[in-house]
Amino acid sequence: MFGLMQQHSLLISSLIEFANRHHGDGEVVSKRVEGDLHRYTWSDVASRSRQMANALDALGLEQGQRVATLAWNGYRHLELYFGVSGSGRVLHTLNPRLHPDQVVWIANHAEDQVLFFDMTFLPLVQAVHARCTTIQHWVAMCGVDKLPKDTGIPNLISYESLIEVHSNQYVWPELDENTASSMCYTSGTTGNPKAALYSHRSTMLHAYAAALPDVMCISAKDAILPVVPMFHVNAWGIPYSAAMTGAKLVFPGPALDGKSVYELIEAEGVTFAAGVPTVWQMLLSHMKPNALKFSSLKRTVIGGSACPPAMIDAFRESYGVDVLHAWGMTEMSPLGTLCTLKNKHLNLPAEAQMKLRLKQGRCIFGVDMKIVNDAGEALPHDGKTYGDLLVKGPWIIREYFKQEGESPLVDGWFPTGDVATIDEDGFMQITDRSKDVIKSGGEWISSIDIENIAMAHPNVMMAACIGMPHPKWDERPVVCVVKKPGAEITSLELLKFYEGKTAKWQIPDDVIFVDAIPLGATGKMLKTKLREQLAEYKLPIV
Amino acid sequence: MFGLMQQHSLLISSLIEFANRHHGDGEVVSKRVEGDLHRYTWSDVASRSRQMANALDALGLEQGQRVATLAWNGYRHLELYFGVSGSGRVLHTLNPRLHPDQVVWIANHAEDQVLFFDMTFLPLVQAVHARCTTIQHWVAMCGVDKLPKDTGIPNLISYESLIEVHSNQYVWPELDENTASSMCYTSGTTGNPKAALYSHRSTMLHAYAAALPDVMCISAKDAILPVVPMFHVNAWGIPYSAAMTGAKLVFPGPALDGKSVYELIEAEGVTFAAGVPTVWQMLLSHMKPNALKFSSLKRTVIGGSACPPAMIDAFRESYGVDVLHAWGMTEMSPLGTLCTLKNKHLNLPAEAQMKLRLKQGRCIFGVDMKIVNDAGEALPHDGKTYGDLLVKGPWIIREYFKQEGESPLVDGWFPTGDVATIDEDGFMQITDRSKDVIKSGGEWISSIDIENIAMAHPNVMMAACIGMPHPKWDERPVVCVVKKPGAEITSLELLKFYEGKTAKWQIPDDVIFVDAIPLGATGKMLKTKLREQLAEYKLPIV
Repeated sequence: MFGLMQQHSLLISSLIEFANRHHGDGEVVSKRVEGDLHRYTWSDVASRSRQMANALDALGLEQGQRVATLAWNGYRHLELYFGVSGSGRVLHTLNPRLHPDQVVWIANHAEDQVLFFDMTFLPLVQAVHARCTTIQHWVAMCGVDKLPKDTGIPNLISYESLIEVHSNQYVWPELDENTASSMCYTSGTTGNPKAALYSHRSTMLHAYAAALPDVMCISAKDAILPVVPMFHVNAWGIPYSAAMTGAKLVFPGPALDGKSVYELIEAEGVTFAAGVPTVWQMLLSHMKPNALKFSSLKRTVIGGSACPPAMIDAFRESYGVDVLHAWGMTEMSPLGTLCTLKNKHLNLPAEAQMKLRLKQGRCIFGVDMKIVNDAGEALPHDGKTYGDLLVKGPWIIREYFKQEGESPLVDGWFPTGDVATIDEDGFMQITDRSKDVIKSGGEWISSIDIENIAMAHPNVMMAACIGMPHPKWDERPVVCVVKKPGAEITSLELLKFYEGKTAKWQIPDDVIFVDAIPLGATGKMLKTKLREQLAEYKLPIV
Repeated sequence: MFGLMQQHSLLISSLIEFANRHHGDGEVVSKRVEGDLHRYTWSDVASRSRQMANALDALGLEQGQRVATLAWNGYRHLELYFGVSGSGRVLHTLNPRLHPDQVVWIANHAEDQVLFFDMTFLPLVQAVHARCTTIQHWVAMCGVDKLPKDTGIPNLISYESLIEVHSNQYVWPELDENTASSMCYTSGTTGNPKAALYSHRSTMLHAYAAALPDVMCISAKDAILPVVPMFHVNAWGIPYSAAMTGAKLVFPGPALDGKSVYELIEAEGVTFAAGVPTVWQMLLSHMKPNALKFSSLKRTVIGGSACPPAMIDAFRESYGVDVLHAWGMTEMSPLGTLCTLKNKHLNLPAEAQMKLRLKQGRCIFGVDMKIVNDAGEALPHDGKTYGDLLVKGPWIIREYFKQEGESPLVDGWFPTGDVATIDEDGFMQITDRSKDVIKSGGEWISSIDIENIAMAHPNVMMAACIGMPHPKWDERPVVCVVKKPGAEITSLELLKFYEGKTAKWQIPDDVIFVDAIPLGATGKMLKTKLREQLAEYKLPIV
């Protein structure tokens, strides 16, 4: 017997129409590529998204065809989120930090039909356009007055010219909620990139979950600064959850330096910001010497990679800002866990709370996870035993785009490639990436633990730990260190610093000072590249 | 083109398994019918829900068959929420406050197969059982030691005997998410009761939405006291949202007097409570003379009927508790709107904020609403124009049970029977029930406005305003008043009290002092009954 409830598909178009109807004057503020501040409302977003939908119809784009972007966080990008997906096309957010060859490969693999790009990326587009074989329309995200001549890009038009001739009335199609809505490629360190193909249903369920109090706690009282890029797994779903709740959105555009981010937070009364550790490091580095404080910021969600304890401390103790660890993946839309405490933890001493805060957090309802050993057997949730982390849920992929039939799932679970512990309260902690964990004499050493200790040293700016081949122990850890500008530290001093902070056998065998640690397009350390750089390195065998 | 995301049905069983896995030691505390306090965990709820599912299998109950309850808020009732719906049967929460004849009519109409009842309701069950023609199994919600002999009820068994022989291992069925999960009858004031038949999908989407920060803001940091009965539209969905987030649940059982509720809030560290105004009135009446304060309670959601401004003030100013108006209907699962302020309202003066707080609130994402005139045309959202309120969304009914094909919808919208305004910010305010609004000389007078003014008088305990026939104006308002115990007030004094508080022509023509105002099973004033009682009354025509 079926229930007798109304049937409404979960559709992205309903988000923007809800924001329009019930939060019409809610603000969306964008720092533009041009440097100025653009300011309008959710009603304007809705109106221009409908114009965009009409424009895509006029271009002859069919349902399911891919529309690509190379763009910063800004209002036009937001309009594409709703205009493209809402009208039944697939929004493909390209990562502009990738190598041009990768951009070409991905655009061709996705069979993108249109490319929208911010003017910042004109040189990139000029470098790749001739090789992008499927793109038929090139749109610069600016007004016609800002459109440069003689770019070499065929039929280049401006965003404003494209939409201005179209009506802002549009009847959004009543799609099946499993219709594809958007896609993101993972910047794998090996092999070709692979794409997650999200659906309206997965996006909508994720939007509800992401806004929950124990997740990002998004409400109409918030002004949200997504520093995490909109090309990076849809800015963790924030644009959708913001429309769902009528929150104010503040977009930083390309200006991610500490000063710009700080000034934007203060000027727009930002209550909640989300981003990767590297951006927050720049923010703190700007604030401390200038003795600045936050007047409105209450919490920040940090994801993308583990947050150094020192940064959590700095935010909480110096600035009164709650720092929440988040963990997820492109394949997970992306949110899997958030580190928010439970009722029973609220009266714990600060130190015990800190131990919890350093974990990646506990499952958001919708996601389940488990850790398994090499035989695939579930391991206990005791906070000590670690194993390969597997996840499942309605916003986790079952297959990659164009790899239908080659399911990455193991008995219905998606293998994350992370090694983790899960404690009795469900708090998960990534010990390492499966491929980064250091296997020394049958025991595993977490490269992340070793890095965190080094990063706690006042003279260390960044640290990366990798395993080096060892004749007796198979592998031994070494730590590559970037010193803080003007600071000095010797190998011996740093190795001494480890004493008492970890088991003796886990202390690195060597310290290698480097000028920089190679970072990927999303700010993550590229250990494969680091290993290549150190191909000639030999461990000091004592 | 479809997305490539994992397919998982939205099922109620996933809630209890999530709570078990990730919040296993989270507490569920119940004041029992026996008077003592029962205390266990979400893992125990899960374990015993699975035993119940096995027991229902053993009884031979088929999927879709109805399992009825006559029960207070307590842990066994909670187990039935998951055990019955999770295993594919339909949980039918009967309202024990109804007249026995109505209980019989409803149980027969629903074709209930099993009835679970709290011992409080033994006399009711004894009075009705012979006439309930479909019920085959009678289960008293107690241990075998508490089971009375010679009840006259055939094969009566105890809840504990029913489940104790069964395993706590159970594989929940992978149901279609549109499968019926539960049902509630509306206690209509005219005609036979009608049932809303909820689905797993509607319940799960409602559970996500109900937990959002701008709705009930339910998290693992909360200890929730649902005073609103579990037989009243599933306690507004709180049991589901609590399992979804791992919140602690505190059930009051039958003890809803001010002293019991206050003591439970304090003893269990309740942070959030939900109920109808009459219960909160009893609570405040207990606290004030005893100079009591709350030590943990932060917010309360008040629904069921409009909350008098004086009560909102008392909670906020005397006790520091945020009072949120909620509005919904049995046909809406039940939540439609919550009255939480937006970012732009946070700096308004207290008086302007209060004006907003008196409204029923703004749409939860998933619900849309509009007001229309007699011709069905949409009216402006200006906060002044009122019209018939219509709603739509995935947790709103499309038809009543056994009335398939007789859709109550108007162009896809469900007519609520309320008259309301909606302001520019989307805040809806019920002006009246369509049938209670007083039509005086072509203008409408809100009976609720007239009641609220009377209730603001220190000597008035309760007030009900109804329209009386008038030869010239068609109808004129009179207000029926219950004085506070020991307090005195004259008609003239009260009529004077109206001056300056409302337009002169809206001041009632008369005051009628009564000992009590007839209340329905859910605490709402029964104006139809009041009108019957006043059948002989004649307006003083001046």
